[in-house]
Amino acid sequence: VTDEPPAPSAAERAIARARQVMRQSTLREILALAARPGVISFAVGLPATSLFPAEGLARAAAELLAIDRRALQYGIPYPPLKGQIVELMRLRGVTCRPEQVFLTTGSQQGMDLLVRLLLVPGGRVMLESTVYDGMPMAIKRLEPEILAVPTDLDHGIDVDAVERHLRAGPAPAFLYLITDGHNPLGVSLGEAQRRRLALLARQHRMPILEDDAYGFLYYGEPGESPAPPLRAHEDEWVYYLGSFSKILAPGLRTGWIVAPEALLPTLAALKHGADLDTPSFGQRMISSYLGTGELPGHLARLRAEYRERRDALLAALEGRLAGAVRWNRPLAGMFVWVELPERIDTAELVRTAIEDEKVAFSPGAAFAVQGSRHADHCLRLAFAHLTPAEIAEGVERLARVIERALG
Amino acid sequence: VTDEPPAPSAAERAIARARQVMRQSTLREILALAARPGVISFAVGLPATSLFPAEGLARAAAELLAIDRRALQYGIPYPPLKGQIVELMRLRGVTCRPEQVFLTTGSQQGMDLLVRLLLVPGGRVMLESTVYDGMPMAIKRLEPEILAVPTDLDHGIDVDAVERHLRAGPAPAFLYLITDGHNPLGVSLGEAQRRRLALLARQHRMPILEDDAYGFLYYGEPGESPAPPLRAHEDEWVYYLGSFSKILAPGLRTGWIVAPEALLPTLAALKHGADLDTPSFGQRMISSYLGTGELPGHLARLRAEYRERRDALLAALEGRLAGAVRWNRPLAGMFVWVELPERIDTAELVRTAIEDEKVAFSPGAAFAVQGSRHADHCLRLAFAHLTPAEIAEGVERLARVIERALG
Repeated sequence: VTDEPPAPSAAERAIARARQVMRQSTLREILALAARPGVISFAVGLPATSLFPAEGLARAAAELLAIDRRALQYGIPYPPLKGQIVELMRLRGVTCRPEQVFLTTGSQQGMDLLVRLLLVPGGRVMLESTVYDGMPMAIKRLEPEILAVPTDLDHGIDVDAVERHLRAGPAPAFLYLITDGHNPLGVSLGEAQRRRLALLARQHRMPILEDDAYGFLYYGEPGESPAPPLRAHEDEWVYYLGSFSKILAPGLRTGWIVAPEALLPTLAALKHGADLDTPSFGQRMISSYLGTGELPGHLARLRAEYRERRDALLAALEGRLAGAVRWNRPLAGMFVWVELPERIDTAELVRTAIEDEKVAFSPGAAFAVQGSRHADHCLRLAFAHLTPAEIAEGVERLARVIERALG
Repeated sequence: VTDEPPAPSAAERAIARARQVMRQSTLREILALAARPGVISFAVGLPATSLFPAEGLARAAAELLAIDRRALQYGIPYPPLKGQIVELMRLRGVTCRPEQVFLTTGSQQGMDLLVRLLLVPGGRVMLESTVYDGMPMAIKRLEPEILAVPTDLDHGIDVDAVERHLRAGPAPAFLYLITDGHNPLGVSLGEAQRRRLALLARQHRMPILEDDAYGFLYYGEPGESPAPPLRAHEDEWVYYLGSFSKILAPGLRTGWIVAPEALLPTLAALKHGADLDTPSFGQRMISSYLGTGELPGHLARLRAEYRERRDALLAALEGRLAGAVRWNRPLAGMFVWVELPERIDTAELVRTAIEDEKVAFSPGAAFAVQGSRHADHCLRLAFAHLTPAEIAEGVERLARVIERALG
């Protein structure tokens, strides 16, 4: 009598495949270590909890529940919020209409829905070689072919490389990028890059998914105004991803897409299958808060505080690590990218850093497409959630770790 | 000079395909008509807005924002809420551990994530021939082969047919069903069906996705206790979908899956790609509300009120339509299914009903798998959001429409 196991069922085969395709990087393990008490962690890209406008949002929630229980009901995307988003977009230099605004359960869902719309299994996608890991997570189950284009902390995406790819063969399903305050590179694109990218999208009828999570967190000099996003140059082939997570609060999970109106019914059908509704309560809380007119003051405060934190980080790096490592000076966002000598593996270094000095960061490998090794000697520092004093102490610890590693 | 249009780009081809695959039924159009002022609408499965525990939730929100701003931050699934869900499951007769509880952005996301886990493009799925449309919406972009099994308003799913399918060939990726208060059929499964289905799932290593959105809304006689869900009989091959939408409020978009612990890391990776986090704010508000101990009283009130509404609907049907149409007496949930004579097309009837009598319902075709015509003469009445007086008046209007249609 043989006791052979039965052939795996369809479900067992699918689960085994999903497990393999979706296996997490070691980042998750590092984040767990980084959460230990006493560790100063530059590892996670969090906005500052202490700067959430909690009083304003609490007032909005209380008023809402007192006057209109529909905030707790299923609901269509809340029309007043769409109008308010059109106004926000105007602040970013973008003209759009409420009919082009699609509300999402956070910006990650915006990515996921656009992926469902644009990418077929095994299709092709263009990504920067160093990329926010939310996009690889959104596409990996479709096992796409990835066209990686070079990018760096000085200038961002290499537009010549994009153009070469597009000339060499059919355009991929889309190009994803972050125009301002790039996660993880910290870089913002120059005006000429923006114009060229918008034009390439149109010429090749290839959507660019423009992630603008950080555009409102701009640290230019007074009087300077930031370059507008790609969407300001191209309204048909640039799909804009917006988010309240960094300017209000991520716990409400509310974001938006600005896309051609003709796509919205299909996006709505895809969203119906994904999660039915964006939470009414969050939509109405945000709308009510925006209605108080407090957002511009809140944004000014965020910019001032985060700028101070960025400056504290840059000063500490300059004071402790000048010459030994390389970094940039972000004009927007929450991240500084640091390049160490190539012989240092930051995925190993971070374990030592947590163990020996109680300081954490994200290793560059976490943001390298397709397991590429090009960023193994780099690391990302997230500064928005730390006070200047914590930042100074954190860099002090980090410097000791790096100095020892450099011998 | 020819002016041929260029060949469509990858994005254009994908969009055209998505548009075709995801095209909505006419239900959406009917729902828009049904929302006209003055229409008594049985069309949408809404819980009663007036019965939301708004004061309790408002208190929970205020306390939360006053004491812990982390409710607004990104966050891991909130551990206290998982523990509270284990207690809720115990009320339903199910034993599980917090390590088996996976939080979702509403129950529809639970379906979507399990579909991502279990179903490959073009795979096979077993569905009841009359089915909640959220599941077809979640699978249609994968264009699966659907094995339809008969079901009806008297006994629900035909377990013999399930067994015949499973004996005839390899098991599909999963079977989806609603055990109690079926949407749209109103039926609850008998104890023997539950046991047989649980056993078939195990024997054929085919997950059953058990949607228990309505199980807490049970209208049995005092002293009777409802039969426990399938998950009580089978903890490895039944994946349970739970929801706060019908027992607290849908606007918070919080649901859960109870699944084997070994699946949770892969579900977490799939969720990361889909929407990163379940809204922290909703999770903590619900946890805080559950912590007050008010839920059992709230559930008792919901059951009493909804039972009264169900009884008002059954009495009105009996008074006005006995003999002309057929319906059942749901023991749980929010729906009554009505069968008209076969020559009546309810998708046409609903337009007349709205136009002539200002009453709306969902035509049966909206719930028929794969465009089957078997339910064209049926309709679904959702009663939870209407008062007994509105229900009586609505059935009066409906009866006039049906009488005229029957000539």
